[in-house]
Amino acid sequence: MADNVKATHVVGVDLGGTKILAGAFGPGFQCLSRIKISTKPERGPEGVIERIARCVRDVVDEGDLAMNGIRGIGIGAPGAVNTEEGRVIFAPNLDWKDVPLKKLLEKELGVPVFVENDCKLHTLGVFDAELKGKVRHLIGVFLGTGIGAGVIIDGKLYTGFNGSAGEVGHMVIDINGPECACGNRGCFEALASRRAIFRTIQTAVKKGQETLLVEMLGKELDDMRSGDIRKAIRRGDKFVEKVIDQAAEYTGVAVGNLINLFNPEVIVLGGGVIEQLEHEMLPIIEKVAKAHALPGTAKGIEIMATRLGDDAGITGGAVVAMRRTS
Amino acid sequence: MADNVKATHVVGVDLGGTKILAGAFGPGFQCLSRIKISTKPERGPEGVIERIARCVRDVVDEGDLAMNGIRGIGIGAPGAVNTEEGRVIFAPNLDWKDVPLKKLLEKELGVPVFVENDCKLHTLGVFDAELKGKVRHLIGVFLGTGIGAGVIIDGKLYTGFNGSAGEVGHMVIDINGPECACGNRGCFEALASRRAIFRTIQTAVKKGQETLLVEMLGKELDDMRSGDIRKAIRRGDKFVEKVIDQAAEYTGVAVGNLINLFNPEVIVLGGGVIEQLEHEMLPIIEKVAKAHALPGTAKGIEIMATRLGDDAGITGGAVVAMRRTS
Repeated sequence: MADNVKATHVVGVDLGGTKILAGAFGPGFQCLSRIKISTKPERGPEGVIERIARCVRDVVDEGDLAMNGIRGIGIGAPGAVNTEEGRVIFAPNLDWKDVPLKKLLEKELGVPVFVENDCKLHTLGVFDAELKGKVRHLIGVFLGTGIGAGVIIDGKLYTGFNGSAGEVGHMVIDINGPECACGNRGCFEALASRRAIFRTIQTAVKKGQETLLVEMLGKELDDMRSGDIRKAIRRGDKFVEKVIDQAAEYTGVAVGNLINLFNPEVIVLGGGVIEQLEHEMLPIIEKVAKAHALPGTAKGIEIMATRLGDDAGITGGAVVAMRRTS
Repeated sequence: MADNVKATHVVGVDLGGTKILAGAFGPGFQCLSRIKISTKPERGPEGVIERIARCVRDVVDEGDLAMNGIRGIGIGAPGAVNTEEGRVIFAPNLDWKDVPLKKLLEKELGVPVFVENDCKLHTLGVFDAELKGKVRHLIGVFLGTGIGAGVIIDGKLYTGFNGSAGEVGHMVIDINGPECACGNRGCFEALASRRAIFRTIQTAVKKGQETLLVEMLGKELDDMRSGDIRKAIRRGDKFVEKVIDQAAEYTGVAVGNLINLFNPEVIVLGGGVIEQLEHEMLPIIEKVAKAHALPGTAKGIEIMATRLGDDAGITGGAVVAMRRTS
């Protein structure tokens, strides 16, 4: 494998259960090119890794670069990752167990590869590229199908004893609440993730609740997306609005807990749910969080939504690739 | 003020709402002498500070030392502290607001004084004196009248952006739970502190619940202590046992949350409730916490009770005094 230390560019890859997004980046984290393809996890790890490699080559070419101009590749995987070995330990959405992603991808591409959990990568992307590393302590909370997070303490990603720090989605905030996929009750993820929001709506519709979503998508609501939720609210659907208000309140309590525990300088929110519903949710989240932080302790702490949107993952990948090869 | 850099001994002080405990310590954190007096907070900050100064002089003399043999004094206060200035910002149990404890005590004693929040001090005491600094990430959780904690990350006390990190007592774990003194609902402190346990028992007794505690203490249960609870359980009081089991379950959920969020190497439990009820509570806490940590993430993490007992505060004070004068 070539050690392209003189190369100035990097590639960031966001590996999800449905899509692979790759971006080529220059030294200031400006994105030169962007390619999105479907993941096709049913083809197994080798099939997916082939697709990642192709996507990387295509995005390098799209940016008028060559592979020998690439210092490294940073990739975020949706699950537990051993970052030192670059192994994906467990990624349920890909149906992967113990996949040596770094090794296999380096063999395909001949460029150093760095693997990280996707939400930790998003947080690093926000920290370095969006906030320019100007804060010391930052927590990134990402509301998507599930809920993940990244914790930055003293300017460095904090991972804890077993590498799993920041499992914000499984913080219990309602001990008698709905069951979570993890087997416990009332985890933040079981209350405010896209999956939790969709389940609440579907259960109510089955019980006869009327909503514009049925008009828009049919009775089964099968292809419901966060964007549909936003549209229904903006067209005046009070039921859907109430569901989202409730999810925002749970998120506010969770963020309040994070302020009481970590007292970070900034809490940044992201993920598909926030990207679509920031306008509806952020004011409630902020109000509830500050009411739950002990008096005085939230002073000067900023609660914001990331502006990186869909690019948080590839930007974070670029940040990791740049950091690890410097 | 003398800068006693050649002095080898330190004094640790645990300032509580009812008692002042001081200890003189040698270089290996062995306690040479120990003096306890009542705080008498009704005499106001100046009266209390005079009492602290007398207690320090007495404990130094008791240990056959002289004040010029003391390098520094570390003192833990029950409330919010500005450690840089050594000010107690707010201590409700003392009825103190903005007291320049460091300045006033240094004037009285002529020795450098270092002020810290009591639970953070306890955690430092456990970290340095009990665990000999052998772990990187540690959280100390102290169940007393309220619930406090200290967080050590990478061997250093982590305090966050406003100095208030580790407010574990105000982590919401039961969003619909009982009201907390802070104004919110279902904080850990409103569910498992001594105050919460006592309130649960008193409310049930008022509604006609029978318990050995009424035989032991009278109908009002006014002077109930954690030790009485332990005695009632050991004499077979099933009602009291159930209340404590429940408090232990809440504590297990809280500790599980801390593992998911911080993934520390060790979580150490202490405070009056644990000191008296370790045998009853620790097995439940451990079981529930590990069931709430995501699979694999609690591997190798130890949940233990401190052996320092009542001395955690003065030992922590000695640790801080030694660290800051080295």
